[in-house]
Amino acid sequence: MTLTTGLDLAAVFVFALTGALTASRAQLDVVGFIFIAALTAVGGGTLRDLFLGRLPVFWVKDPTYIGVISVAALLVFFTAHLLESRYKAILWLDAAALAVAVPAGVFVALSLDHGFAVILMMGVVTGCFGGLMRDVVCNEVPLVLQKGELYVTTAFAGGLAAVLCLWLGLPVVFVLLACGSMTFLLRAGSIIFGWSLPVYRPRPKKDGPSN
Amino acid sequence: MTLTTGLDLAAVFVFALTGALTASRAQLDVVGFIFIAALTAVGGGTLRDLFLGRLPVFWVKDPTYIGVISVAALLVFFTAHLLESRYKAILWLDAAALAVAVPAGVFVALSLDHGFAVILMMGVVTGCFGGLMRDVVCNEVPLVLQKGELYVTTAFAGGLAAVLCLWLGLPVVFVLLACGSMTFLLRAGSIIFGWSLPVYRPRPKKDGPSN
Amino acid sequence: MTLTTGLDLAAVFVFALTGALTASRAQLDVVGFIFIAALTAVGGGTLRDLFLGRLPVFWVKDPTYIGVISVAALLVFFTAHLLESRYKAILWLDAAALAVAVPAGVFVALSLDHGFAVILMMGVVTGCFGGLMRDVVCNEVPLVLQKGELYVTTAFAGGLAAVLCLWLGLPVVFVLLACGSMTFLLRAGSIIFGWSLPVYRPRPKKDGPSN
Repeated sequence: MTLTTGLDLAAVFVFALTGALTASRAQLDVVGFIFIAALTAVGGGTLRDLFLGRLPVFWVKDPTYIGVISVAALLVFFTAHLLESRYKAILWLDAAALAVAVPAGVFVALSLDHGFAVILMMGVVTGCFGGLMRDVVCNEVPLVLQKGELYVTTAFAGGLAAVLCLWLGLPVVFVLLACGSMTFLLRAGSIIFGWSLPVYRPRPKKDGPSN
Repeated sequence: MTLTTGLDLAAVFVFALTGALTASRAQLDVVGFIFIAALTAVGGGTLRDLFLGRLPVFWVKDPTYIGVISVAALLVFFTAHLLESRYKAILWLDAAALAVAVPAGVFVALSLDHGFAVILMMGVVTGCFGGLMRDVVCNEVPLVLQKGELYVTTAFAGGLAAVLCLWLGLPVVFVLLACGSMTFLLRAGSIIFGWSLPVYRPRPKKDGPSN
Repeated sequence: MTLTTGLDLAAVFVFALTGALTASRAQLDVVGFIFIAALTAVGGGTLRDLFLGRLPVFWVKDPTYIGVISVAALLVFFTAHLLESRYKAILWLDAAALAVAVPAGVFVALSLDHGFAVILMMGVVTGCFGGLMRDVVCNEVPLVLQKGELYVTTAFAGGLAAVLCLWLGLPVVFVLLACGSMTFLLRAGSIIFGWSLPVYRPRPKKDGPSN
């Protein structure tokens, strides 16, 4: 098993858990669990492969992924009722999956000899799009867009950390570790302490009290 | 005309009808009819071709599809007012299109020598994604996600039937017939008799009557 | 810089402005601005490249685009509060971007020697899908679907104009100018004068006054 496959498999499994938990909140049946789990789990990596022209996409080349997703979906279907808060579980599993998927995207772009800008973008795409599709299809407010949260920003910062380490000439394992840690720590800080960037707020047009 | 082209053309025509009918419910103009019809009709097959790396996608290789979609959209634009219930027409045409699109997806994966898991997935992707895009863009609740309905499940069962027949070594025509029939019969049963799988329902936390 | 690159760069910059302005209406942070700007700016061209099998997609081949998008997003982030009406700015910038993106799509299909139907479709895809993704993700009513507006229709008419000029054997520069002008004039007419095509309205079933 290569490093790419290992990272992809881990991200796929954990994203599939979040997809299945979202399906449980939408009260779908077991096939709906598998469908949303699959969409979430392979969404980001599939876009990455399409954009890079790495076809057929990873889960067609190696159907192990489909098995892993089905296992994750069934696991959630039969055990989700044991959870205190499914929303909290989604949040934290999603953070973990993000912290694996961003380095997975970075590593694929790196191994195809792309430049820094593309490496950064592939980290963001691989990390963010699975969860975005999950939320758009299930009609939840995309985590990507929630105010007062760092989400795309954490993937972006993870990608920047990777690019910085590459530029410094550090070994690949260190690059990926730095990328994943940066992503996870920022995301965890945002969940626990409410870390966020200032949002855009239009300047009021008049100074009157009625404004 | 090859078998793939024939199956694809039939699925494209019928899905285009459902797209145009959805556009009529959203009161779009005639170009909006063609746009939504095209999105619905080629959505699933386009994703299938992308995932498999079968590029350019089928409707770029053979522009007949674009003509077929335009005819379907115009047909609906000028005759939809004759229908008793457009919603019912959408339901049944969608069921018919699904029962052609799933074998179309299965056949393409089969003719590219993919394994059982990929064949199954391509049936589901080709069948379900056109309707999903139609519903997300038109802001209807996706048929894919409606509770108490079999939808993805029917595509899944159709794919399983195909894989089973292949495993038994049956001839391809029979494989495709079994796949389409299984899909259609389950979907029809779901529409007429309300067949469904049990949905996920969290176990109540307390036994009190207020729960 | 080739003509394709020039057209793509211009469309990307202007679409990125509309994406960032939509992000400002959703009160996102600066990374959210870049994310939505990128989705809008490269959405249509990315789909075009995928459908045509022109991989890796244009912004992976030439990362200049990513820089251009970031500049546009930052520009909006720091100056949007100076605008009288962000909605009006989005409308008009979107019209300008559409009038560049449609010829950009036409030109790519043309230079790959595709037929008229594919040239027309690629104009529509390149023009319309970036804005559609922006609106679906930000949960705004897609401009594509707003009643009493010409939108897809203007892209469609631009594509038809291009195909007509090609059929007449006119030089490519003229083809692209005709395509862009037709698109922009129709869109501007729709915004200013409310030009529209008749929308589908079901015939009332009874003649009674209560209908």
